[in-house]
Amino acid sequence: MRRLKNIAVVGVGLIGGSFALGLRRAGAVARIVGTDRDTQALERAAALGVIDTAAHSIADAVAGAELVFVAVPVRAMGPVLHDIERVLGPDAVVTDAGSTKSDVVRTAREELKDKFARFVPGHPIAGRETSGVDAATPDLFRGARVVLAPEPGTLPEAVALVRGCWEACGSRVATMDAARHDHIFASVSHLPHVLAFALVSEIVSRPEGQDLLGFAAGGFRDFTRIAASSPEMWRDIALANRAALLEEMDRYGARVAVFRDLIERGDGPGLMRLMTEARNARRAWAGGKRSHTDE
Amino acid sequence: MRRLKNIAVVGVGLIGGSFALGLRRAGAVARIVGTDRDTQALERAAALGVIDTAAHSIADAVAGAELVFVAVPVRAMGPVLHDIERVLGPDAVVTDAGSTKSDVVRTAREELKDKFARFVPGHPIAGRETSGVDAATPDLFRGARVVLAPEPGTLPEAVALVRGCWEACGSRVATMDAARHDHIFASVSHLPHVLAFALVSEIVSRPEGQDLLGFAAGGFRDFTRIAASSPEMWRDIALANRAALLEEMDRYGARVAVFRDLIERGDGPGLMRLMTEARNARRAWAGGKRSHTDE
Repeated sequence: MRRLKNIAVVGVGLIGGSFALGLRRAGAVARIVGTDRDTQALERAAALGVIDTAAHSIADAVAGAELVFVAVPVRAMGPVLHDIERVLGPDAVVTDAGSTKSDVVRTAREELKDKFARFVPGHPIAGRETSGVDAATPDLFRGARVVLAPEPGTLPEAVALVRGCWEACGSRVATMDAARHDHIFASVSHLPHVLAFALVSEIVSRPEGQDLLGFAAGGFRDFTRIAASSPEMWRDIALANRAALLEEMDRYGARVAVFRDLIERGDGPGLMRLMTEARNARRAWAGGKRSHTDE
Repeated sequence: MRRLKNIAVVGVGLIGGSFALGLRRAGAVARIVGTDRDTQALERAAALGVIDTAAHSIADAVAGAELVFVAVPVRAMGPVLHDIERVLGPDAVVTDAGSTKSDVVRTAREELKDKFARFVPGHPIAGRETSGVDAATPDLFRGARVVLAPEPGTLPEAVALVRGCWEACGSRVATMDAARHDHIFASVSHLPHVLAFALVSEIVSRPEGQDLLGFAAGGFRDFTRIAASSPEMWRDIALANRAALLEEMDRYGARVAVFRDLIERGDGPGLMRLMTEARNARRAWAGGKRSHTDE
């Protein structure tokens, strides 16, 4: 991948900051301009050396950039892309890091107009237990998977540029269409989040909820850890990926009904078979993961 | 609590071994005899100094013991209590560590006959990511909650003895009836386990299951960690606590249906309200836990 002269990072939190640090460590870029609505975060990013220059508007950040990396909440994507479109250079490429893709593609098509062919929808699959630029690290995306979801009209050179950046950060890039992306993440990410929120919600809706929580231990802790995530972010994801998520909720509900039936009928061998399959798959997954990403 | 001369530990795995080590460190017992169907585990327990004497039968272990601690899988409880009843001394007390209580009470009443008044049903709430006597530690129960579920006819001095042992291990003891115990643990433990097994089961039942797992990350990892647990143990628990578990599955299903409806109708404020309540409760719980048990 050729060395870039100038990139703009819109939103200098954990994701934007870690992307900047990863590219910088790889020597893939000469100058990084950052911008953020939160001026404290912006100044902090400059003070930490995550960005070279703090720009106080999207116009200032994007002017002269060969690549614009948008790492803002999905609900802020529309206005941000709107502002980017007005100042984007003639060959500049735009990409994002949103957790859902069909809705981002729709928004980007609308806002970027004839520049949409230079937009590469992206989604880095990286842990987010912490947030903010102070937690940013060049290693966040090392070994992580990144999905790019180009549309039929997306320019191949734009995809190649974005792929090169992620590979420079040490990521493994997969390409698929937005619908497939949203279907996969509804199943392995969005659904578990909704289920974890629902379990805690159910328990605390009872008068005896606090009593029950007093006896909760390690299993509950792991299962519900993601229910401590940002409600704004997960509300937005659930609504943005509504169709795929509803489908996954129904599939899951049908499987829970199978377990319920086995339990009700006292079918030990049937339960044993399904639980053993699940246990084996979960262990194989964890084993495979360890070799890739130290999870 | 008076110092005990002799206790018997039936089943010298993680739980039995840690109980022995906790009592020993507290200076609460002079001599600990262990027994286990698994002779390798038994020899290992003796070699590690977890027990003073390895007995090769329940009769040998229980003879002369003032307290018998039964830490075997719930499905083995019947035959073990049957053997104990035949040799139990006239004042000796028996307690257990099973994860369900109504079924254990039923079995104990049947097997211990007129000695049932000296049986104290118990359940230590301790992590079990590891197993086996090599993982045993005197700290396993420090700060952990232990539920005792005496029946109306249980002798108060038997309850006091068992309570004293758990307190010597550093545990916080709560007392409630078996039905209440089973209801609480159906909700905060057995239900999440079944739900986690069901999620992995649903995903791997699809032809594309392995593809989906390839994109699973931290949220999935936490949510499904308990699906790597022992299928035998969780099959047994699900069936032993069937009535309470089915009730909890139905309550949970109703709450998931509320979430589903909010998502389908695109009700952002409604989702935000439930997710925020859950997030706040989960964070408060984790905060409260930290101060007790360093979870």
